Amino acid sequence: MSGIVGVYSKDNHNVSQTIYYGLYALQHRGQISSGIAVNHNGFVDYHKDLGLVNEGFNKEIIDGLVGNIGIGHVRYAQQSEGKNTNNAQPLVAGYKMGPLGLSNDGSLVNVNKLKDKLIYSIFQTDLDGEVVANLIAYYHEDNIESAIVKAIADLDGSYSMVLMTWDKLIGARDPHGLKPLSIGKYGEDYILASETCAFDTIGAKYIRDVEPGEVVRIDENGITTLRHEPKEIRKCLFEFIYFARPDSGMNNRSLYSIRRAAGRKLFKEFETEGDVVIGAPDSGTVAAMGYAAESGIPYKEGIIKNRYVGRTFIEPSQELREQGVMIKLNALRENVEGKRIVLVDDSIVRGTTIKRTVSMLKNAGAKEIHVRISCPPVTRTCYLGMDTPSEESLIGANMTVEEIREEIGADSLYYLSLDGLIEATGGDKGYCTGCFDGNYAVEKEIGE
Amino acid sequence: MSGIVGVYSKDNHNVSQTIYYGLYALQHRGQISSGIAVNHNGFVDYHKDLGLVNEGFNKEIIDGLVGNIGIGHVRYAQQSEGKNTNNAQPLVAGYKMGPLGLSNDGSLVNVNKLKDKLIYSIFQTDLDGEVVANLIAYYHEDNIESAIVKAIADLDGSYSMVLMTWDKLIGARDPHGLKPLSIGKYGEDYILASETCAFDTIGAKYIRDVEPGEVVRIDENGITTLRHEPKEIRKCLFEFIYFARPDSGMNNRSLYSIRRAAGRKLFKEFETEGDVVIGAPDSGTVAAMGYAAESGIPYKEGIIKNRYVGRTFIEPSQELREQGVMIKLNALRENVEGKRIVLVDDSIVRGTTIKRTVSMLKNAGAKEIHVRISCPPVTRTCYLGMDTPSEESLIGANMTVEEIREEIGADSLYYLSLDGLIEATGGDKGYCTGCFDGNYAVEKEIGE
Amino acid sequence: MSGIVGVYSKDNHNVSQTIYYGLYALQHRGQISSGIAVNHNGFVDYHKDLGLVNEGFNKEIIDGLVGNIGIGHVRYAQQSEGKNTNNAQPLVAGYKMGPLGLSNDGSLVNVNKLKDKLIYSIFQTDLDGEVVANLIAYYHEDNIESAIVKAIADLDGSYSMVLMTWDKLIGARDPHGLKPLSIGKYGEDYILASETCAFDTIGAKYIRDVEPGEVVRIDENGITTLRHEPKEIRKCLFEFIYFARPDSGMNNRSLYSIRRAAGRKLFKEFETEGDVVIGAPDSGTVAAMGYAAESGIPYKEGIIKNRYVGRTFIEPSQELREQGVMIKLNALRENVEGKRIVLVDDSIVRGTTIKRTVSMLKNAGAKEIHVRISCPPVTRTCYLGMDTPSEESLIGANMTVEEIREEIGADSLYYLSLDGLIEATGGDKGYCTGCFDGNYAVEKEIGE
Amino acid sequence: MSGIVGVYSKDNHNVSQTIYYGLYALQHRGQISSGIAVNHNGFVDYHKDLGLVNEGFNKEIIDGLVGNIGIGHVRYAQQSEGKNTNNAQPLVAGYKMGPLGLSNDGSLVNVNKLKDKLIYSIFQTDLDGEVVANLIAYYHEDNIESAIVKAIADLDGSYSMVLMTWDKLIGARDPHGLKPLSIGKYGEDYILASETCAFDTIGAKYIRDVEPGEVVRIDENGITTLRHEPKEIRKCLFEFIYFARPDSGMNNRSLYSIRRAAGRKLFKEFETEGDVVIGAPDSGTVAAMGYAAESGIPYKEGIIKNRYVGRTFIEPSQELREQGVMIKLNALRENVEGKRIVLVDDSIVRGTTIKRTVSMLKNAGAKEIHVRISCPPVTRTCYLGMDTPSEESLIGANMTVEEIREEIGADSLYYLSLDGLIEATGGDKGYCTGCFDGNYAVEKEIGE
Repeated sequence: MSGIVGVYSKDNHNVSQTIYYGLYALQHRGQISSGIAVNHNGFVDYHKDLGLVNEGFNKEIIDGLVGNIGIGHVRYAQQSEGKNTNNAQPLVAGYKMGPLGLSNDGSLVNVNKLKDKLIYSIFQTDLDGEVVANLIAYYHEDNIESAIVKAIADLDGSYSMVLMTWDKLIGARDPHGLKPLSIGKYGEDYILASETCAFDTIGAKYIRDVEPGEVVRIDENGITTLRHEPKEIRKCLFEFIYFARPDSGMNNRSLYSIRRAAGRKLFKEFETEGDVVIGAPDSGTVAAMGYAAESGIPYKEGIIKNRYVGRTFIEPSQELREQGVMIKLNALRENVEGKRIVLVDDSIVRGTTIKRTVSMLKNAGAKEIHVRISCPPVTRTCYLGMDTPSEESLIGANMTVEEIREEIGADSLYYLSLDGLIEATGGDKGYCTGCFDGNYAVEKEIGE
Repeated sequence: MSGIVGVYSKDNHNVSQTIYYGLYALQHRGQISSGIAVNHNGFVDYHKDLGLVNEGFNKEIIDGLVGNIGIGHVRYAQQSEGKNTNNAQPLVAGYKMGPLGLSNDGSLVNVNKLKDKLIYSIFQTDLDGEVVANLIAYYHEDNIESAIVKAIADLDGSYSMVLMTWDKLIGARDPHGLKPLSIGKYGEDYILASETCAFDTIGAKYIRDVEPGEVVRIDENGITTLRHEPKEIRKCLFEFIYFARPDSGMNNRSLYSIRRAAGRKLFKEFETEGDVVIGAPDSGTVAAMGYAAESGIPYKEGIIKNRYVGRTFIEPSQELREQGVMIKLNALRENVEGKRIVLVDDSIVRGTTIKRTVSMLKNAGAKEIHVRISCPPVTRTCYLGMDTPSEESLIGANMTVEEIREEIGADSLYYLSLDGLIEATGGDKGYCTGCFDGNYAVEKEIGE
Repeated sequence: MSGIVGVYSKDNHNVSQTIYYGLYALQHRGQISSGIAVNHNGFVDYHKDLGLVNEGFNKEIIDGLVGNIGIGHVRYAQQSEGKNTNNAQPLVAGYKMGPLGLSNDGSLVNVNKLKDKLIYSIFQTDLDGEVVANLIAYYHEDNIESAIVKAIADLDGSYSMVLMTWDKLIGARDPHGLKPLSIGKYGEDYILASETCAFDTIGAKYIRDVEPGEVVRIDENGITTLRHEPKEIRKCLFEFIYFARPDSGMNNRSLYSIRRAAGRKLFKEFETEGDVVIGAPDSGTVAAMGYAAESGIPYKEGIIKNRYVGRTFIEPSQELREQGVMIKLNALRENVEGKRIVLVDDSIVRGTTIKRTVSMLKNAGAKEIHVRISCPPVTRTCYLGMDTPSEESLIGANMTVEEIREEIGADSLYYLSLDGLIEATGGDKGYCTGCFDGNYAVEKEIGE
Repeated sequence: MSGIVGVYSKDNHNVSQTIYYGLYALQHRGQISSGIAVNHNGFVDYHKDLGLVNEGFNKEIIDGLVGNIGIGHVRYAQQSEGKNTNNAQPLVAGYKMGPLGLSNDGSLVNVNKLKDKLIYSIFQTDLDGEVVANLIAYYHEDNIESAIVKAIADLDGSYSMVLMTWDKLIGARDPHGLKPLSIGKYGEDYILASETCAFDTIGAKYIRDVEPGEVVRIDENGITTLRHEPKEIRKCLFEFIYFARPDSGMNNRSLYSIRRAAGRKLFKEFETEGDVVIGAPDSGTVAAMGYAAESGIPYKEGIIKNRYVGRTFIEPSQELREQGVMIKLNALRENVEGKRIVLVDDSIVRGTTIKRTVSMLKNAGAKEIHVRISCPPVTRTCYLGMDTPSEESLIGANMTVEEIREEIGADSLYYLSLDGLIEATGGDKGYCTGCFDGNYAVEKEIGE
């Protein structure tokens, strides 16, 4: 999972600050590393570092990155990787046709097959984007644009990509539309970004999405579609449920309203009596408000989050854990004690967090706790770019709903149906439902 | 403004971890520095550093602090001070009667007069606590407890204090009760803390408050009141409105319910028509929900906060500011556009934040914006420990309500009345209302 | 300029610590970045970072690098490059034939021509080693060893290289022997290193040099020569004069004795009267002692170096500079005042340092200063891997000896003759003298 | 052990940069912390931090310190203290008579007795300087200068001190002259510093020493002696042997020439046959050159030091230690092998370093090793400010010379006699010889 940004300035504005603020808006899509590459008449400069955008960049660095075309990237932590910048993006390379930059969000499923073709290439990273760049070089006898189009036509899996050549910005999205990519504009400058909230942040206007299967070129002549070969639309539902920011739009609706609608659906599908609706912080809040609005049960804050918990803190000793040390969350006793609580969350993955939350609410005197989840049970791991754990860690892959209810200590447990979820998204097109029912948009190739 | 913690373990538990987690819970009371001092049979050890608790302490440091008595402190930034640890607390000193540690929250008004008495003393910090420690030394011919009681009797202003001697923990609160201090217990161990949320965090039980004007001693014999000379009760209203954590309790109610009640009062005092109630993030959320509940106007999230804005980031260039770069906040257009909005906040100090929020909502298409503030206009600066700016910076000190409305661009503006606010707190006792009407609990001495 | 290390452990020792200490010994060859890559049965792990070895590595990192084959690299600062780890070595890559690691010291002169061949490759760094790795992939239809031999046969310029495949360590040295590479052994383990001081540091025994034009393979069968095609031997004289550590050996003599011999030659070629011989710190010390021994003029320390000057310090204001602030060096007045000084240094490049030193000695009361340089004037820039500045910055390229003498303020100036220098090295074979007389070992190709 | 600097600028230059460079020159006297305090018309500002001067200060900090009077301090590590800035100097305080700053080098022996007097004081540090500052406050009824003189008259032990009042700079030195303090001048500005090398560094001229037992005041009227009550002169011999920089002057001679003279004496007292004289790096080099000059045995570098060993590095594993890993030092085999070596060092404290050096030289093939030490055996720990270890760690306190010889593995061992050492210093006045023979300048008081 990643966030990507690309900017082309016809008016020769320096784009590095714009990319920087765009990445800020997409920081929820990746905190492990960030990077920006820019180019002015083919002179490329870039900076990549570990950590958040504001940790990796300062004014001096941004001011040193000069160009009217640029791309950026924020990267999500993956459990397997160590602490080096080698897998940070954008990937920047030179080859016969000049400089090439690439930021990618997604996961290919035919990397090994592609590498079979790339017999003259060496690979210095684990990035799919490095395979794509080598493919572009492989097709180099053509001009660079047609090489890019050919290379992208070879890819299978999920991807959303911005590429920078010496004088053009290219955007591409996989033919199922698994990964998001939108086009914005401010003045005569164009911006491509994973989510529309990046446009709001920099004051740009949303124009349209890059379509599934589309490759667009942005240059002094504006936007040109180089290729458009969609397959069956299969958007990633987790973007709707959890991943994208609530103020971003998809399917012409805000994620906020989609999540609120999912909360309403949750009540409609399975009515519950209760005294108070509580959202699991922070991901369940919006759905909980929808549930409250639909059910008429008052929404209250039942859990207070300590806003000053940093990324690292000292783990409590066994003795203090038994004593009940709770650093991050605290139940708001008066909204909980003696109450029948409807606790709404957006999903259950491992089940450990919701279990701890239920236990905390019980300790604070909750009379009953009815857990409501605004998506179906997650039963399969995702190989298409969502960083879900392996199936042995997925509680939904190993237990029935009743077993999960018991494990997490809830008085009742209900998951929103897949149909209900899809209705809430307002989508008239299809979705990838692989993580819920194994019906993935793309089959995984052998050996991947 | 500061957060303080003190722990006494009769059972000889090491208290450093407990203090650490207690400070974590009080981190909203101060982020500029943190410190912990412990003592075992008179052997004192301590550590203080700049920044948040999790920045200043790691496991090695905490494990190196060994003692069954200890105190901690988190400190709020003050505009005047540079970046050194010199003013970090706890203050730790040795004198004829042994080791002495002191953490203080508050602001004395008779420091100069006290210093006149302390002709043999040198002062290495700007801390009131250093004056107190020197006063204790000044009264040293008595035993240390009576010296502490005498020293405290000399103080004028606001203070809430924990002191550590070689074998005792002392807590003291100013006679007006301006600053909070509560007593908790877990097993046979006692904890003093600025707010009760610290007790929840470490799994302790709230026992009672240290009373205004009370000095308590905690040792192997439990709690003993050494002195109890209250004056007229004048609690700080800003603790209720803004400063304390919503899950902390004061006046036997949670701050959450008090702020919600203030939101309800706001509507009762001045009914408004509107389509949606929005809370200014994060401080106005609870009052906004109360307002929504009382008025029947639906509460919605109208403003999304970027959760990944660190403490430092690059300021946008003038060009990008004009373009409308908004890093921290984004309007949720669909809850705003074409709507009559009731925007609730807890207070207006300088007026700059609310002005920017109103402007952002207007840009997102709000039809009307009615600003409702859950306290009266802040017209005076506080010299009793609340870090309000000087009066030239206080918008309420320089404009009428109508002028403020115009300045911030709202369609209407209403402040909760002082009576309404006090009713919401449920307090049958008095408050310091100095910042609203100049009626301070304590007069400032000349030269302070 | 770089330092390289490679280790193969037949007995399956973990080699990361050995490489770490080996790099420590070669730290004078590069302080800008360091890196180590290891491999165990083809599972490669590596770490690279900016700065010195002890800044980039800690115990946790070293212990995490597990393998019985490994290579390391330290890199010299180049003026053109920014602060990122992208050009740090070793280069680590995977390709059809498995993992490949490469550390290189040197500079190729036919990179552009090689790239013409590598039409399917992309280049993510400025490293010659990346070209070599792509060449190896280009020759991939053969087995990896023969591909490496073919690739190396294509190279033109200076290089000294260690390569790691999944089960072998390869060492290669350019056919002119411009760059050094030696073989050491401890127990059954082999070590390749730029200089023999690395063997002393880790307790290994010097076996022999990798010969000019030789490619050696080290595996469970010991050392095998894969190729040996030397050209005319043209070692880099600057390694002898300046770059290599005095306790390293070349031509079966220590650099210490070679530099001392050069000092002796200096006097023999041009006898000077003087009261005291002083070495310019630190590089002129050894030659100065040789000069003193030959001339009978006593060697004394005339300049004291501040041992605590870090890499960054505040530049003195203009006012303080005029006042004569000297942070790094101080004249030892009593060995200088009223004395006729013979000041010996190893070379003059820009001339700024020696000028400042002469001026300082004059200010300290030196009666006469006779500068003696233990190599000829440097008149040409090096494109074969020595990081000399461009010719406009080389004082020897722009002034006669007499002009230089005047510029640096010396009473006399004498440079050792090229013949004298070569005699001092004890070398019966040839040297590259390009930087002195333009007679480079290898011609620079057009466009490089 | 510390280094101190004080500057008074009559011409109202800002003194912070001057102090900074002065501390740089004194960095060998302390690396654990550094600090600077300045004052302009009584407005005091200061900065203290852990680590070297260039780590604790940057341009922004220095430029922020504005004043025409200032003092600075560098502090030596003491084994007992943790990592906090609490014991960093200068001590800065305010009291009835205005601001007071104090930097001290030395160790008092009557602290407890002084504290008995200071019954109204609290002590926040372990610094002797804090006791002195409280004494000054204690005598406050007088004007500040006479209070300072009275306070200093109370002190017993070693001290060298600079004090800053709102308009004056004061310097004081203990009556035995144990600790050094010199006066320099540049233009109309005065500088006090522990060693004269600080004057050279900033371009100032040495005027004279502050005399033992003298208190000087520097203000707009120049230098005035406020008190001069010397006792028997007993300078610290370790300053001469080891501690002070070779380019500093004491007794009107450079330390360089004194150490060279000690090397000459070493040979004169006990003639030895040998092939080569080697200095133990770095402390024995100068004496070794003197020994070589006197004996006619050639001086050679037998040990090469790795210049890039930082303060922290990974300790070799047991296996590698056995293999002989030597990170810091390497024998220069050709100057060692088969040779009879005279190894000269300035002192033996614990004996571990010299033992390791002897062993390394033996491993490199030395035929004989004759260790010569340019001071007598150190048999007693110092309580007067030299940071020698406790007596159980002093090899000279626990073994005879013959036993030490055997322990360190030398073929012979000779220590310079005390008379020989004193002669070498050129001192016609007395020395403290406590660490050699127990005859300390000042008796330690009970309980100190």
